[in-house]
Amino acid sequence: MKVKIGPAPYVYPIPMILAGANVHGKPNYELLGQCGLMGVNPAIVYLSSGKDHYTNIGILENGTFSINLPTTAMLAAADYCGIVSGHQVDKATLFESFYGELGSAPMIAECPVNLECRVIKEFSIQHRQVFVGEVVMAYVEEEFVTEEDGKRRVADMTQLDPILYALDNGYHRVGEQIGQGYEEGKKFHPPAR
Amino acid sequence: MKVKIGPAPYVYPIPMILAGANVHGKPNYELLGQCGLMGVNPAIVYLSSGKDHYTNIGILENGTFSINLPTTAMLAAADYCGIVSGHQVDKATLFESFYGELGSAPMIAECPVNLECRVIKEFSIQHRQVFVGEVVMAYVEEEFVTEEDGKRRVADMTQLDPILYALDNGYHRVGEQIGQGYEEGKKFHPPAR
Repeated sequence: MKVKIGPAPYVYPIPMILAGANVHGKPNYELLGQCGLMGVNPAIVYLSSGKDHYTNIGILENGTFSINLPTTAMLAAADYCGIVSGHQVDKATLFESFYGELGSAPMIAECPVNLECRVIKEFSIQHRQVFVGEVVMAYVEEEFVTEEDGKRRVADMTQLDPILYALDNGYHRVGEQIGQGYEEGKKFHPPAR
Repeated sequence: MKVKIGPAPYVYPIPMILAGANVHGKPNYELLGQCGLMGVNPAIVYLSSGKDHYTNIGILENGTFSINLPTTAMLAAADYCGIVSGHQVDKATLFESFYGELGSAPMIAECPVNLECRVIKEFSIQHRQVFVGEVVMAYVEEEFVTEEDGKRRVADMTQLDPILYALDNGYHRVGEQIGQGYEEGKKFHPPAR
């Protein structure tokens, strides 16, 4: 039996990412779960960040941001970026930063995957500012990249060891593989009703 | 060393959800990974669905949709909903549907968590239609719900056994818990640089 539990935001587990922006010329990184995909081809992503957050200043200043995927080994540092604000603490030296094609979106060298993004839409929803961005370039640690027909991709996501966040406030690893997209459904036989 | 792999949509792994909408008075369900959170309190979610998708017709018709979280045991049925379109196949009888407070957003009884949503914003990005919704009510299978100080919540997300989708086209389970939000960062000592 289902019970009503109020208007809960139960879309979980979500990947935890570090959003990067240059604020007043210095890198700042914010831990965010309100981040995800809006399109795959072309690659469209978004961040939703509280209006008073320090990161927002830099995104508005430059029209660019980055998405950095920390590993579970970086959990303490990543969580720290969600506890302290750039308004109070200088997060520029927490990681080694690098810049890509846009020149203004700082990225974290220690993260195996970085997405460099240009803002293509911005809007407010209640106390949140939403930045929709197109991915201009993805940077991936060489050891995780495979090349096939001239196209580079990550062969095995579990090797990236990302951090998941769950509705019960727990952080988790990715678990065992249970199937392949667009394959499992071929085994399904709709019930006769 | 980092290598450039082009504008890849590497925000992963993502929770796989079944988006529900009444199309011409009948439930339809679409498997989506382009779905996530924009706010927690209040709970704001979104779906990004290709403009020609059948589900979109129903969302525009009613201004409502649902988000349903399948379990790994439902993997074949869920993946099937991503392979076949409502334009060709009637998906109304694949699951047992129920309705909530809005009366027009069909939800899947077999899923342990259902979010009933009202559209508060809609926009297009390239070939995609994005529906931003406020969660009006969350319905959760009774056995997973705990109550504390009069507030109901899910105590342990792993019990919900959700499906993750990864950038290598693999489906995964949620793995072991490795920490708690807003706790791990307390153990972090910023490097002196």
